[in-house]
Amino acid sequence: MASQSQILGVLGGGQLGRMLIQSAINYNQDIHILDPDPNAPCKDLCQKFTVGSLKDFDTVYAFGQDCDVITVEIESVNTEALMKLESEGKQVYPQPHILKLIQDKREQKQFYQQHAIPTAEFILTENKEEVIHNKSFLPAVNKLGKEGYDGRGVQVLRSEADLDNAFDAPGLLEKLIDFDKEIAVTVARNAAGELTVYPAVECAFHPTANLVEFLFAPADISEEVEEKAKEIAKDVILKLGMVGILAVEMFVTKEGEILVNEIAPRPHNSGHHTIEANFTSQFEQHLRSVMNWPLGSPDLRCPAAMINLLGEEGFTGPAIVEGQETALAEKGVYIHLYGKKLTKPFRKMGHVTVLDEDVTKLKAKAMKIKDLIKIKSN
Amino acid sequence: MASQSQILGVLGGGQLGRMLIQSAINYNQDIHILDPDPNAPCKDLCQKFTVGSLKDFDTVYAFGQDCDVITVEIESVNTEALMKLESEGKQVYPQPHILKLIQDKREQKQFYQQHAIPTAEFILTENKEEVIHNKSFLPAVNKLGKEGYDGRGVQVLRSEADLDNAFDAPGLLEKLIDFDKEIAVTVARNAAGELTVYPAVECAFHPTANLVEFLFAPADISEEVEEKAKEIAKDVILKLGMVGILAVEMFVTKEGEILVNEIAPRPHNSGHHTIEANFTSQFEQHLRSVMNWPLGSPDLRCPAAMINLLGEEGFTGPAIVEGQETALAEKGVYIHLYGKKLTKPFRKMGHVTVLDEDVTKLKAKAMKIKDLIKIKSN
Repeated sequence: MASQSQILGVLGGGQLGRMLIQSAINYNQDIHILDPDPNAPCKDLCQKFTVGSLKDFDTVYAFGQDCDVITVEIESVNTEALMKLESEGKQVYPQPHILKLIQDKREQKQFYQQHAIPTAEFILTENKEEVIHNKSFLPAVNKLGKEGYDGRGVQVLRSEADLDNAFDAPGLLEKLIDFDKEIAVTVARNAAGELTVYPAVECAFHPTANLVEFLFAPADISEEVEEKAKEIAKDVILKLGMVGILAVEMFVTKEGEILVNEIAPRPHNSGHHTIEANFTSQFEQHLRSVMNWPLGSPDLRCPAAMINLLGEEGFTGPAIVEGQETALAEKGVYIHLYGKKLTKPFRKMGHVTVLDEDVTKLKAKAMKIKDLIKIKSN
Repeated sequence: MASQSQILGVLGGGQLGRMLIQSAINYNQDIHILDPDPNAPCKDLCQKFTVGSLKDFDTVYAFGQDCDVITVEIESVNTEALMKLESEGKQVYPQPHILKLIQDKREQKQFYQQHAIPTAEFILTENKEEVIHNKSFLPAVNKLGKEGYDGRGVQVLRSEADLDNAFDAPGLLEKLIDFDKEIAVTVARNAAGELTVYPAVECAFHPTANLVEFLFAPADISEEVEEKAKEIAKDVILKLGMVGILAVEMFVTKEGEILVNEIAPRPHNSGHHTIEANFTSQFEQHLRSVMNWPLGSPDLRCPAAMINLLGEEGFTGPAIVEGQETALAEKGVYIHLYGKKLTKPFRKMGHVTVLDEDVTKLKAKAMKIKDLIKIKSN
């Protein structure tokens, strides 16, 4: 087992790093954080907090010098610096070449294609002109190759009328899938090769912001679909040869076909409920996997719903949490705020997990909490 | 609801403060810590960490100036400074006069007597001579009035042969109870008067160190005894008029009588399992109660055992955790290390919570973990 005197460096000090720290505390695991924001959510909670760009070679390389193991809580980091650190003997998980692949949605799609991983049909496009040229492919999702995050860089082009919005940069067009459900399966793998798979969860996206709004675990799918989805998720992490935790977002089509949509090689919004709902949280599992510790049980302890607390539209400024008091009085309601002082529309300010053995009551409680807690500003 | 910009000051930065911080993170609750040890477990995990004596008036008073609400994770603090802060409008919970009462086991016992709270018969003793004078009261437990903690300042005097060890300072002699079980009930109360009671837990003490070695939840007692114990615990917090969380340790005699042994006005070793086993952990409940937020459900989610990880006898120095890797591979096993670099015999270095729906399997798993994880030093 990795010695507890090893230092884990994390690129990114946002909410994912913050929840990772909450787990790491239990193991005396020292954490160093690099983040460009001097007020990042992890600021006061780690052994060393460095302010600096995640995309700058020298900054990332210098940050890694102090660390034994290096991981990320966001994909868009300088992978060249990580590769150099890796070549010099640092343990970097997920491996930098995988991060590089995932940073580019075009490469991601080609990877699926090359490895027979089911995914929606697509065309690579270099600019707006090429999108327009492929108008027969509509309705389609137009994605930017790079820098898309939290709903940015993704848009639906339903008809020719939408073509004017087409991204004028390298990207892709993906057939719009008339899916029945969106699900996600989290898998984790350590350097020893141990592999574990979480039960599938069902995601409901915000109609306009392209962000997960609700999540339900377990997903309301057949055992057959569940098993197929788990096999696909395992297949993805094995074909990547990745160490760490990987969230695999998938569409279930009306015909019961499963298509991989996107993947995230880190703790992910679709796994936040695991803190209270599963035997091992995704944050602890990420820690275990990158530190090459034995993995924990991914089993569900109780059905759960997760609600993202997004900044309300129309409010920008110092955040105020409305409705928290009423929510706190409910049994099985777990509020997680991310330590962000400022809110803006759709900013991820926190999440709430709701537990209930009775799935009908669970959904009702989740709706109630969703209507109750609002992130606003004066 | 108390504004999230309020600062909570905590006297003591040990493991209880550390686990409190893990909960406080979820609410963006800023925490300031005062502790004499510059390497205290909370050191890197709070918004402000001050090194200083908890017993010095000026230090405690100055520390409290920055805070809106002040609480403790250890009883032996300067209550005069807290009273002055309270008189100046700070919210101090538990209230300083209650801390002062609890600091002295003699006053504690008299409080029980005056308020008809069942407790073992006792005699106050001023010195060793008075203990010897009362030898007819043996077998008895001889307790120091002040400064007892984690098993120190408590000893059994079985017969005249033991009298030479009697404490030569103000203390008491308490009839040795031939108990069937030791149980503990945690209660919490906020300033609004809301009161909540946790299910009883059963404690098994280390034969020589007078420290909890195992804990099982739920306690294997009749419903009648459980209800009686809960009523007594409620009675204690109400008669104290206390705000905060209170652990009430009790003996269940062979006749089914319940006697209050000791109380702790803070998160307590007998509630560590609540992190994973109950809907609301004792740390979150403490936070909710002192901040005057609505209290959470104390219900048990799953039967649990808790094992203290004490420094092994014969080892003093930089701590090494043996057996952690094997333990990590077990389902429903939760390791909590306290961030203490140095071990010594019986030092509380961490704890492990074990969950299992099957109580027989639970006990077996707890024994296995106990034998597996050892805190040693080279």
